[in-house]
Amino acid sequence: MKQYKAYFIDLDGTMYRGKDPIPGAAEFVKFVQGQSIPFIYLTNNSSAKPEQVAKKLNDMGIPATGDQVFTSSLATAKYVSSIKTQAKVYVIGEEGLYDALEKEGHEAVDHGADYVIIGIDRNISYEKLAKACLNVRNGAKLISTNKDAAIPTDRGMLPGNGALTSVVAVSTGAKPIFVGKPEAIAMEQALDKAGLEKKDVLMVGDNYETDILAGINAGLDTLMVETGVTSFKDIQYSVKQPTYKMKDLYEWLKR
Amino acid sequence: MKQYKAYFIDLDGTMYRGKDPIPGAAEFVKFVQGQSIPFIYLTNNSSAKPEQVAKKLNDMGIPATGDQVFTSSLATAKYVSSIKTQAKVYVIGEEGLYDALEKEGHEAVDHGADYVIIGIDRNISYEKLAKACLNVRNGAKLISTNKDAAIPTDRGMLPGNGALTSVVAVSTGAKPIFVGKPEAIAMEQALDKAGLEKKDVLMVGDNYETDILAGINAGLDTLMVETGVTSFKDIQYSVKQPTYKMKDLYEWLKR
Repeated sequence: MKQYKAYFIDLDGTMYRGKDPIPGAAEFVKFVQGQSIPFIYLTNNSSAKPEQVAKKLNDMGIPATGDQVFTSSLATAKYVSSIKTQAKVYVIGEEGLYDALEKEGHEAVDHGADYVIIGIDRNISYEKLAKACLNVRNGAKLISTNKDAAIPTDRGMLPGNGALTSVVAVSTGAKPIFVGKPEAIAMEQALDKAGLEKKDVLMVGDNYETDILAGINAGLDTLMVETGVTSFKDIQYSVKQPTYKMKDLYEWLKR
Repeated sequence: MKQYKAYFIDLDGTMYRGKDPIPGAAEFVKFVQGQSIPFIYLTNNSSAKPEQVAKKLNDMGIPATGDQVFTSSLATAKYVSSIKTQAKVYVIGEEGLYDALEKEGHEAVDHGADYVIIGIDRNISYEKLAKACLNVRNGAKLISTNKDAAIPTDRGMLPGNGALTSVVAVSTGAKPIFVGKPEAIAMEQALDKAGLEKKDVLMVGDNYETDILAGINAGLDTLMVETGVTSFKDIQYSVKQPTYKMKDLYEWLKR
């Protein structure tokens, strides 16, 4: 089997489900770490800061540092910087998104924004959506951290950021620019961050529509595990297949 | 000019804008009333009860009784009754929607709903949207009072119910049944209520996409006024044209 120089690893459904680590996840990361192969956690979750995500992983016994976590919020903040430095942004989102934008030097404003940036916000309100629409109608470009329609939780599938973003898209007619998986923007940034060529990287994830298509579209090899959203049956007729399909990450270690 | 036996009259942009009556509106309604021609106010706004809407009109000097107001909430509640009596409904909406559903004998529930009903809700929250999604994923049908993407306010165009509904539609993949203008459901119910044939009714409104298309699609003659959302220029290339186009309702009185 091909040797990879780096791994991009999804979190939700691959490393953990809600508050519980997925069996094999810690063992897999420790194995990769033991071989001194670099890895980056690549998550569409925009709500937390990298250090918070790393702590959550550590608390589950999974090795991680803040530097190894690349969220859709970081990718979005960097994407905005690539178009405009010190941009004025109207933000709907949680701590991770505000923090990433601030660290990139962008200024959160209520009116006169250059960009409206939307990430998951469990405190969404009509007023927040109204201000987003007014800014877009006033000329702000609409950018969204990720287009996940639903997110898996203990209670079932709840609205994801793609669903929240649709309020502003439908109301204004603006077409959002999505940053996170499966879009090219986040993948290119992650490859930049790793300083590696795509042929040398394996993308590991559970969600065919986000993780696996992100990898395939960016030209990476992909490993799909069946511990999260997508089952192998779901993709039996898909034209684009993952490079590897494994029930869980134990299977990768035993190969 | 053809004599009509009844008028269907839109409210927002036709009778008033925000808190202000539109010049000519009161005169128009008083003229119709003076000729003893019945009229029904047909509004996609689901937030208020008919009596509240009538009071708002009266306060502006425009004649109206609760019986003459037919909201998308009433149409939605009656539509649900036509499929199932005493249905269990999970509701996102304001007072007008809750009231209409209760008066039709439907029961608001948090879980195990037969229908998820969405109307404009200026107190929308993630939790409300989450429960709507869970009910839909659990088998509830998705019904929405109206699909207006945006509503005109003093502050500009803010998110309408069609935009809020998209959260649940996008997240679950369910296709909503829309009730209000321009859909056939509300128009058929209004014709039923009036006890008249469509050839005898004139639909009066400012919004081409809702009022005028509702009338045209239902086979009614239409009068479009330029006091609200749509300008005549907006529709200059539209294949389906209103029967009459007038700058305001004074023009109708002077004809």
